[in-house]
Amino acid sequence: MSRFESLPGFRAFYPEERAKLSHILEVWRQACRRYSFREWEGPVLEPLELFTAKSGDEIVRQLFNFTDKGERLVTLRPEMTPSLARMVGARANGLPKPIRWFSIGECFRYEKQQKGRLRSFYQLNADLLGEAGPAADAEIMALCADCLLGFGLARESFAIRLSDRTLWFRVLAALGVSEELAPAVLTAVDKLERATDAELIAMIKEALAGANADPVRILSEARRLAAVRSFTDLEAALSKDEGVQARLAEWRELLSLLKNLGVADLVRVDLGIVRGLAYYTGFVFEAFDAQGDQRALAGGGRYDGLIEKLGGPALPAVGFGMGDVTVANLLEDRGLVPAYADGPDFYVAILGADARPAALSDISILRAGGMRVDYNLRDGKFPKLMQAAETAGSKFALIYGGDEIANGVVKVRDLTTRTEATIPRTDIIPALRAVLSEGFSAIQP
Amino acid sequence: MSRFESLPGFRAFYPEERAKLSHILEVWRQACRRYSFREWEGPVLEPLELFTAKSGDEIVRQLFNFTDKGERLVTLRPEMTPSLARMVGARANGLPKPIRWFSIGECFRYEKQQKGRLRSFYQLNADLLGEAGPAADAEIMALCADCLLGFGLARESFAIRLSDRTLWFRVLAALGVSEELAPAVLTAVDKLERATDAELIAMIKEALAGANADPVRILSEARRLAAVRSFTDLEAALSKDEGVQARLAEWRELLSLLKNLGVADLVRVDLGIVRGLAYYTGFVFEAFDAQGDQRALAGGGRYDGLIEKLGGPALPAVGFGMGDVTVANLLEDRGLVPAYADGPDFYVAILGADARPAALSDISILRAGGMRVDYNLRDGKFPKLMQAAETAGSKFALIYGGDEIANGVVKVRDLTTRTEATIPRTDIIPALRAVLSEGFSAIQP
Repeated sequence: MSRFESLPGFRAFYPEERAKLSHILEVWRQACRRYSFREWEGPVLEPLELFTAKSGDEIVRQLFNFTDKGERLVTLRPEMTPSLARMVGARANGLPKPIRWFSIGECFRYEKQQKGRLRSFYQLNADLLGEAGPAADAEIMALCADCLLGFGLARESFAIRLSDRTLWFRVLAALGVSEELAPAVLTAVDKLERATDAELIAMIKEALAGANADPVRILSEARRLAAVRSFTDLEAALSKDEGVQARLAEWRELLSLLKNLGVADLVRVDLGIVRGLAYYTGFVFEAFDAQGDQRALAGGGRYDGLIEKLGGPALPAVGFGMGDVTVANLLEDRGLVPAYADGPDFYVAILGADARPAALSDISILRAGGMRVDYNLRDGKFPKLMQAAETAGSKFALIYGGDEIANGVVKVRDLTTRTEATIPRTDIIPALRAVLSEGFSAIQP
Repeated sequence: MSRFESLPGFRAFYPEERAKLSHILEVWRQACRRYSFREWEGPVLEPLELFTAKSGDEIVRQLFNFTDKGERLVTLRPEMTPSLARMVGARANGLPKPIRWFSIGECFRYEKQQKGRLRSFYQLNADLLGEAGPAADAEIMALCADCLLGFGLARESFAIRLSDRTLWFRVLAALGVSEELAPAVLTAVDKLERATDAELIAMIKEALAGANADPVRILSEARRLAAVRSFTDLEAALSKDEGVQARLAEWRELLSLLKNLGVADLVRVDLGIVRGLAYYTGFVFEAFDAQGDQRALAGGGRYDGLIEKLGGPALPAVGFGMGDVTVANLLEDRGLVPAYADGPDFYVAILGADARPAALSDISILRAGGMRVDYNLRDGKFPKLMQAAETAGSKFALIYGGDEIANGVVKVRDLTTRTEATIPRTDIIPALRAVLSEGFSAIQP
């Protein structure tokens, strides 16, 4: 109908869809508040350099970047962590540690248009800064779980894969791979399921850059570890190397904390997850749909060096991100989208101009009392107004006609059962509060 | 501390500031819901043409516009009305009328940097579409008032100036100015207080473009009308012209509806307000700070032709916009920024590693019960933990030490009075719910 279109990959939320989005944002917010995380918010537009500093120049082709009228290289943010790093850095000394912060914001990426791939989406980020031990990792993983459980998802419907880049570093060190070369080798590990052995060996060889280590052995070790699915098997699969064993002690601590926090049943050991991003430094995890197509729902981990790299203080950090689109699809699949009653509490049907002054006066009283009230702006006949009341999503109509006004009463109609009751106008607030809390029977004669 | 800066005119909200912003957004949202308005949301990035179609090419220099990687001319939205028009247009036949919609969104403008002038801000827009009569104008003005009253502002602290472009058109018509030329003449009226008579007459002359009307008489009439401050004076000041008198009947209806809705005391007649934007077609209004510097807090009016101009159906419309920045400043000035208790309900002080498993288990129970709980991730001594509890903003600490665990109890400490009470761990949910609702005395021995 319109000659204008919205841009590809951008969503317009009609009220029904906005109500679903509100539900998602609210469940996230409430979960974060229960964990005593405080909300922060950064700018949607940022200097381009803030992101190239973290991710290198390659990221630019995925960004909504441009030159502004002041000749600044700017970009719509693709993520919120660099803004977090800057804000924490600017007040690092004044902020009590550990810092428990979350943010819910729109993020943008410019990528090839595909079905379901959006260029704008909402993301929750929750981060815990200032604590290096596994207690912080456990807290963040438990919060991630609660951000999903809050939607009413069954415990068996999703799980959290747990892996550990520190452990990989130690394993690779024992195989002769330095910490410097390890991230590039892990990039190959990230492709274990998608590449052939020949391709993987070539990648590992390139990553080793001439270092004295055996690509074939590295690959076979990587395959062996990535296949492990329990901590007992992990302990059995690993060497007695001191660095490796020290890290296993931290695993035991983390798993015990997760058990205490009541989420151990949701956690699966899976070293195949290495999280592509080079800045993760320790435990990493990915929540995924365990009943459907295994899609990732959230991801996170420890990133101890990043805040400093982005200009902040040296501050250990762990966090996760979760997007609204995958969550919305999951809730849809599982039938967990709540039916929204975003209609009014009462629809006031005004029958005739004479009744209008009294009706409007009562409407303003009801609204001041916190009730949601719709009414007909234009006079109309009774059946048409009852239709409008139902269309608006109201369960009850209040009928203001000449007779009612003359008798100082208002008729309350239950639109489902079509029964009616009469209440004095002087009693309107307590009577209608009772209807809302106890149902129509509260005022039935 | 950081080598990165955020862009000029963009805000970063630390948790204290985000809590204030949340308060503003929430008061707006609740007021709109009481009026049975439903929330919608449009894209932050839009085709440039969507705005030039409404406001002409001059608007471009105030926009954050750029060419995206698909060679599209795009812009960060400066306002939300064109997106509303497109969305309503696309589903015009399926949407029940009247349409009561609101949106709260970030808007952007690229303007010269000045103190307090932001390039990004939040705006509330509430619009009522599909009803041409004054009942819709009254409803929107009442909602605008309630969006301010919801902050706890005293009724005498702000007011809404009411004017009428239709009335101006009729008055100007009686002076020989056609409807086509009238908007340009009103642009001069908008400057009555800032320009000299000579300047104004020159502007009116130019606006008349050779039409047979007297600029001096127009200016003197305009000055006379703009000085009127009551409806009685307005009636007295106006000619017996039929068009003018017919419009006065609509004024009587609007004022009577505003009285019924309980907001007439907030409305001031002030024909000096014409709202610069050419697309307003009827009643226009501006809420302003009546005790301070008279700054505008919100503005709106009827814009019956705009939806169609923007590609939608012919649909009468009235709405208003309100920004977060002026509201925040006003609340600050009036001492109406609520003190935020965004700290946890309870801070759990874990004394020693042995107490941790039981403490974490209880923490997960309390959080599942909806309570907000913080705790020490790392062991610490009692005084330091009590300090951390206070810093976190908690009123109560729960103390988990070896003795408490051994006895199956937890110590609850009121951090204000430093008194303590002991409760059995099995009772923790009901006991702590009682503390939250009734205060510490609920569990005092």
